[in-house]
Amino acid sequence: MNPISLKIKEDNLPDITWNLVQSCNVLGNIQNLGHCSLPTYRIVVEILEELFEVIYPGFGQRKNLHFGNLPYFMGEILDRVYDKLASQITQSFCHSHSGKCQESESSSKNDCDSSVRAEFERCAQEKTLAFLARLPELRKLLETDVVAAYAGDPACKSYAEAIFCYPGLKAITTYRIAHELHLLEVPLIPRMMTEWAHNCTGIDIHPGASIGPHFFIDHGTGVVIGETCEIGEWVKLYQGVTLGALSFPTDERGELVRGQKRHPTIKDHVVIYANATVLGGTTIVGEHAVVGASTWVVESIAPHTTVLIEKPKLRIR
Amino acid sequence: MNPISLKIKEDNLPDITWNLVQSCNVLGNIQNLGHCSLPTYRIVVEILEELFEVIYPGFGQRKNLHFGNLPYFMGEILDRVYDKLASQITQSFCHSHSGKCQESESSSKNDCDSSVRAEFERCAQEKTLAFLARLPELRKLLETDVVAAYAGDPACKSYAEAIFCYPGLKAITTYRIAHELHLLEVPLIPRMMTEWAHNCTGIDIHPGASIGPHFFIDHGTGVVIGETCEIGEWVKLYQGVTLGALSFPTDERGELVRGQKRHPTIKDHVVIYANATVLGGTTIVGEHAVVGASTWVVESIAPHTTVLIEKPKLRIR
Amino acid sequence: MNPISLKIKEDNLPDITWNLVQSCNVLGNIQNLGHCSLPTYRIVVEILEELFEVIYPGFGQRKNLHFGNLPYFMGEILDRVYDKLASQITQSFCHSHSGKCQESESSSKNDCDSSVRAEFERCAQEKTLAFLARLPELRKLLETDVVAAYAGDPACKSYAEAIFCYPGLKAITTYRIAHELHLLEVPLIPRMMTEWAHNCTGIDIHPGASIGPHFFIDHGTGVVIGETCEIGEWVKLYQGVTLGALSFPTDERGELVRGQKRHPTIKDHVVIYANATVLGGTTIVGEHAVVGASTWVVESIAPHTTVLIEKPKLRIR
Repeated sequence: MNPISLKIKEDNLPDITWNLVQSCNVLGNIQNLGHCSLPTYRIVVEILEELFEVIYPGFGQRKNLHFGNLPYFMGEILDRVYDKLASQITQSFCHSHSGKCQESESSSKNDCDSSVRAEFERCAQEKTLAFLARLPELRKLLETDVVAAYAGDPACKSYAEAIFCYPGLKAITTYRIAHELHLLEVPLIPRMMTEWAHNCTGIDIHPGASIGPHFFIDHGTGVVIGETCEIGEWVKLYQGVTLGALSFPTDERGELVRGQKRHPTIKDHVVIYANATVLGGTTIVGEHAVVGASTWVVESIAPHTTVLIEKPKLRIR
Repeated sequence: MNPISLKIKEDNLPDITWNLVQSCNVLGNIQNLGHCSLPTYRIVVEILEELFEVIYPGFGQRKNLHFGNLPYFMGEILDRVYDKLASQITQSFCHSHSGKCQESESSSKNDCDSSVRAEFERCAQEKTLAFLARLPELRKLLETDVVAAYAGDPACKSYAEAIFCYPGLKAITTYRIAHELHLLEVPLIPRMMTEWAHNCTGIDIHPGASIGPHFFIDHGTGVVIGETCEIGEWVKLYQGVTLGALSFPTDERGELVRGQKRHPTIKDHVVIYANATVLGGTTIVGEHAVVGASTWVVESIAPHTTVLIEKPKLRIR
Repeated sequence: MNPISLKIKEDNLPDITWNLVQSCNVLGNIQNLGHCSLPTYRIVVEILEELFEVIYPGFGQRKNLHFGNLPYFMGEILDRVYDKLASQITQSFCHSHSGKCQESESSSKNDCDSSVRAEFERCAQEKTLAFLARLPELRKLLETDVVAAYAGDPACKSYAEAIFCYPGLKAITTYRIAHELHLLEVPLIPRMMTEWAHNCTGIDIHPGASIGPHFFIDHGTGVVIGETCEIGEWVKLYQGVTLGALSFPTDERGELVRGQKRHPTIKDHVVIYANATVLGGTTIVGEHAVVGASTWVVESIAPHTTVLIEKPKLRIR
């Protein structure tokens, strides 16, 4: 940088910095200063990637796995995941407790003192163990999803292709991991996980949704599955399907009521084709129903029914 | 590699390389040879990531920030961003000037000689300072978007969750940064920025669009907001909403007319639900209007109106 | 970690590990143990990134290219791509041959012995050379796509912007590379490539589809182009367009019939607007037809026809 350029920079940056620092005194909602730190996105993603390695062994980075070296491989990863996950959960407890979150307004502490932090650590370790103990069950469930992917798409050549190439499976695997942590009432981290999958796949499944086995999403970009959805087994969705809310009731202060069932219930063996929109907490799509592409459904559909949009009266020029 | 394999490779690669190099003599449109280099994608993304750190301090990589260390933290990042951004803007000026861009056909230079480059550098530094000085205003605007996200989604548990987990906020933050640079007439870099956000979130906002405060996009995958959109305040969009062009007028040579208003105007307090498509430069959606899911709107909508698709006459089997 | 924490971990992790290892004895479909390894995702992406550097020289990482240094630059990259691609194709052959894939049930080997592996290597090198020799033709085809992007979007300011910022071009470039490898009957890798592009852009093009020159996809998020689509020249698609299957015939055992034409044929100079869904293997959209936004098309459309959804009878409150 030449002397004139340097002088311009040195003349101007201090004021700019000062003004920006000042703006933090007045804009309290968009900073996290003097509080417990948040979980770290990068480490949460590492945890997910390591979990993928033990859930689908031999499909990830680590090559040449066999039953001889598997225990060492699994043991090493679980040890590492335990440390990282326990520490991230501790962080999420500290942050939620610090009074920055609306849901813990009652908390009076601004920071985790050491005894509170020790309690958070203990609790985080417990939840981490409970989560890891669920991994074999999770693998069983995920195997049903792999089977459903192969069974559901004529373009799929093998189970390996489903695991290796199908974004739907990546999103569902991430959701099932996040859902376990959601059931264990871990704050923030489940949402960080599903948003990572959303980023990778365009599929946005809220960790609070409840989804049965043999679930398949093909292509998947634009799929949204809301927090209070209930989905049965052998359900198949295509790209752009929204299982969403119809409207949001507000309380007497005009604020949204949180925590109600707002999203639909999808029974077993339902197929929902591309870009269909199914809305409302009391909407039930009955078993073996088929919802056609681009439909807009805000009322319940009887079992074994096929719903299609009427043949469009096309304007042809 | 064994000797036979090596021989096969050595026998064949030189000709393949030669033919590929030859193809650069005839395909001038898809190479950038002997001209000024383009801005560097990786560095533009680094700039964005550093700007996120100072816009939402404590929510990024850097932990344990407080008012004591904030000035050092801010100062260090701004110093680095200044250098990187000034150099990338210089690059974008050089490239646009080099006669490779259709918009600067009048330019006769093929390369930036040193006096031209010095002028570009000076101008880039000026624009970089002007941009950085806008950061406190940008933070104020972005705080309104955070407030709108929490106010608009019952599944959102806290402002922290909105900042930390909502792709809509990532896309809007990136857009607001890119829009400032667009107003400063910086070439290419604003589009590089919004395409990075598009890649991360599936939300494609052109930096030329004009968007008021308290803007919220939920889920967001598939949202497209065109170059000449005008959006008021407290507007809420859901996934798959297109605010697009209806048709493209062509000039007497059959080429597209560029620069006209082609995209709709959305007034204050409008809500547009999933997968709605609103098209046309003269289409105005009036204040407090509600546009239902999956609708297709090509004419203006009066204020305080709710527009829904007719209850679909479903074919039921 | 304090002693109590350490004890909790040491008391519990061995059992958790043991149970997870046991689960691999029963869940054979979701592991790849004792078999040939799969191709490596990271290296396949590196190959794509290096191919982008030689297809669009001067638009990537490497700056200051000119006709003087171009041969060295191209030669170095091609040498590296050759090694990586030949080795990844070998891997894909080994894996497909190992009896883990449904399509090679006749294979009796569980692993690639050394003579089989040598044959795979030879064949992989041949295919790699055949692919690399096609690069000049590929560049010609891709130049038509760049021209179509600039011609098709009034917001596009230059060819450079199209190459540098348009996700549609990234998806199409990746598809054209993957399609060449698909024609050479390389397993798995073409799908890995198009899923990488899908991840980056939200555009999901199956490598088996057949697409003519001057192809343009604008915005692109949510586009799905199925395995057996046939697309002519000068075709333009917008975000959310599905070219998909209408239904999947099953065989006498109730399993999907694979390999049939299930996806539509799109003739020359067709434009398909946002979120239109065109389905079925016998559906033909005739040349110069225009398919409007949000339409649902399951029957053929005559040439030179414009198809729009009927003006929606909106319910207005």
